[in-house]
Amino acid sequence: MVRSLLFCVLLVAGLWCTAQNKLLVFQSDFGLKDGAVSEMKGVAMGVSPELRLFDLTHEIPAYNIWEAAYRLQQSVPYWPAGTVFVSVVDPGVGTSRKSVVLKTKTGQYIVTPDNGTLTLLAESLGIDQIREIDESVNRRQDSKKSYTFHGRDVYAFTGARLAAGVITYEQVGPLLAKQEVVSIPYVKAIVEGKTIRGTIPVLDVQYGNVWTNIPADLCQQFSFGDVLSVKVLHAGQLVYRGEMPYVATFGAVPVGKPLAYLNSLLQLSFALNQGDFAATNKIGSGGEWQVEVTR
Amino acid sequence: MVRSLLFCVLLVAGLWCTAQNKLLVFQSDFGLKDGAVSEMKGVAMGVSPELRLFDLTHEIPAYNIWEAAYRLQQSVPYWPAGTVFVSVVDPGVGTSRKSVVLKTKTGQYIVTPDNGTLTLLAESLGIDQIREIDESVNRRQDSKKSYTFHGRDVYAFTGARLAAGVITYEQVGPLLAKQEVVSIPYVKAIVEGKTIRGTIPVLDVQYGNVWTNIPADLCQQFSFGDVLSVKVLHAGQLVYRGEMPYVATFGAVPVGKPLAYLNSLLQLSFALNQGDFAATNKIGSGGEWQVEVTR
Amino acid sequence: MVRSLLFCVLLVAGLWCTAQNKLLVFQSDFGLKDGAVSEMKGVAMGVSPELRLFDLTHEIPAYNIWEAAYRLQQSVPYWPAGTVFVSVVDPGVGTSRKSVVLKTKTGQYIVTPDNGTLTLLAESLGIDQIREIDESVNRRQDSKKSYTFHGRDVYAFTGARLAAGVITYEQVGPLLAKQEVVSIPYVKAIVEGKTIRGTIPVLDVQYGNVWTNIPADLCQQFSFGDVLSVKVLHAGQLVYRGEMPYVATFGAVPVGKPLAYLNSLLQLSFALNQGDFAATNKIGSGGEWQVEVTR
Repeated sequence: MVRSLLFCVLLVAGLWCTAQNKLLVFQSDFGLKDGAVSEMKGVAMGVSPELRLFDLTHEIPAYNIWEAAYRLQQSVPYWPAGTVFVSVVDPGVGTSRKSVVLKTKTGQYIVTPDNGTLTLLAESLGIDQIREIDESVNRRQDSKKSYTFHGRDVYAFTGARLAAGVITYEQVGPLLAKQEVVSIPYVKAIVEGKTIRGTIPVLDVQYGNVWTNIPADLCQQFSFGDVLSVKVLHAGQLVYRGEMPYVATFGAVPVGKPLAYLNSLLQLSFALNQGDFAATNKIGSGGEWQVEVTR
Repeated sequence: MVRSLLFCVLLVAGLWCTAQNKLLVFQSDFGLKDGAVSEMKGVAMGVSPELRLFDLTHEIPAYNIWEAAYRLQQSVPYWPAGTVFVSVVDPGVGTSRKSVVLKTKTGQYIVTPDNGTLTLLAESLGIDQIREIDESVNRRQDSKKSYTFHGRDVYAFTGARLAAGVITYEQVGPLLAKQEVVSIPYVKAIVEGKTIRGTIPVLDVQYGNVWTNIPADLCQQFSFGDVLSVKVLHAGQLVYRGEMPYVATFGAVPVGKPLAYLNSLLQLSFALNQGDFAATNKIGSGGEWQVEVTR
Repeated sequence: MVRSLLFCVLLVAGLWCTAQNKLLVFQSDFGLKDGAVSEMKGVAMGVSPELRLFDLTHEIPAYNIWEAAYRLQQSVPYWPAGTVFVSVVDPGVGTSRKSVVLKTKTGQYIVTPDNGTLTLLAESLGIDQIREIDESVNRRQDSKKSYTFHGRDVYAFTGARLAAGVITYEQVGPLLAKQEVVSIPYVKAIVEGKTIRGTIPVLDVQYGNVWTNIPADLCQQFSFGDVLSVKVLHAGQLVYRGEMPYVATFGAVPVGKPLAYLNSLLQLSFALNQGDFAATNKIGSGGEWQVEVTR
């Protein structure tokens, strides 16, 4: 009697526990207008109906590997250990770029072509292990004739099998000889005398806020209320020069006025309260955009 | 033996029952192009992998509290009692606007800044209770340095804990002294003699249909087939004048012809069958747009 | 004791099994900017919180039945047998078009107005059975006054009840007298001498690739590396003429160069590697667009 109770409890507890690791999150540059994302999800549900499927975004600009890297860095840390991400921005589909699964030091898995997509995450969360997908076993049956949709046939399929526990992480394939990822070169923020120099890796597109790569650590010399002098340059040409207070929240300045603040990634950012700083000042993002900040 | 059976049944039934209340629906003006929505969902999954996550919309125009209020009014009634909504259109983030959880009289919960977002729902479904979020306990750990993403750190976190049963509704925080919400002023539809006057709270954006705030009750004087005379004014200036039949369905008029009908919220609306009434006649929405209808 | 164990196992197995068939996938032309999709999902959750809800796409261009048909053909085959699809592109809402549920020969169900939406799927996966929805029983209570949102009141409601096992397929309603669907006429690809003629049913919108209806079977005369001569005509007028290699993957040609390849549906397609073939050459899709291919 006691044993039968125990058995029940263990049985239910077992179901419960395996369910905790069955989270699968998709990112791509496919957009939401056609059937591609749904094909990937159908394949995942065919692997295991127990999986829980989510979207990071499918609106990465076409072929923009840098932005894929940035969005992963932005949101992966907020998901539990054991979550599997499938990121497919893959302009080199069918070429020799490797297909890999990175396990971060915080326990999340990222299934992706190793084409620069892992640049930022490998640095911020760290590489626990990185394995190459063995496509001789980890590929949808009957998909040999299709060469152009590895997102469905290799990445979604492998991500789903990993997330569902159909395969272990070791069964993904062999460890890479070098435990490192293909990286897109980028410049880090630095302090030079009284000036902090950084870049604009990405815009906060929905609101037009300008996000820099200057971390909170480098802003410790500032106090809320300080007035910052900000320059924005494109390929060395001055695009914007202005002064704005360094504040905790948008509401600290009147509507329409500029402010400097720490964004949700704790990096220095510029905005107009309820306005569009980037559009107003014709500011973009990418390697050629630089910022200089002094108090 | 019988007791062990009973125990099993109760155990499974218990899991089943708690699962029924674990629905969490997100709304925001974040858009779907970046990682913000995914950050909120990751936080929710960290609270409980048993939660079921959904989206109302993330395409509320930036800072448009009125439209957030309208979309809640439109869809909350179709979700079961016990569903928790997190709505984040929050231009005043970091200012003194309260963070609250409304429980409607029909049993749904809405987690949101109290900035007008609850204007329409408080009226249509009624206020059962409204509580202020106690951020000393209901806030993500390690989020003290980030002042600008309460959607993730306070609202998604609190909504997830409430939906998952980690906290009770009482544990959200204290009852507001006044059981009322911050309301955006708006004009209701009225009958003046033979004329019904109303406003255009929102457009049916996908199709260009014009939705008024005139409820079915005020249209009982009309019969299907009646020809209505319709005026649309902007800030008192006539923008459109025309006649159209009051019909049950779009198919009752030829393609391209105007019609008046009750929309899915049972409010009087104007359309061109398979056309775009709003764009064709340059009609917008908001407080300055008025309609006059006579038979 | 043994019986009680067995009972537990069967009970849990039973829950498990029913969970496998509770997948419900939505498609529409509603867009994601308002509350319509959420209303449908709320209704489904009200039917059964055990359902798993997914989106194919809600960005079908307004009233475009052909594209709805195409997107179903594209993604339904990748979902497990037993999955229920609700597709609502319904310009004739409230007219005499029938509301039906098709069961494909591969075991998926599609709930939709029978207005051409099933044209391609009925042919590619085959009709196992087709039943008309009996709205006297399969319609939301209290929805009689609303004539314009059958997506919520009939299709989502019926799809949810079918997916959840609340009704059997037979309880949807009677078999259609003729086991056939309303079809949109279209031209199939053919071989004439050394030339293959086809049409452009749809564009791969996100990338600007041109997808034809020429299946892999008709391309067996080509080998990878062959140079194809391609003409694109609109209403008989030549729009594009060019030569390009027939290759397995985009990476086989330099960035910016044209290529011919088999897309993820194994149909002949044209692209510029990391460019936009359709925009560059002003090519569209639909019945008036034709292609001619020779080696």
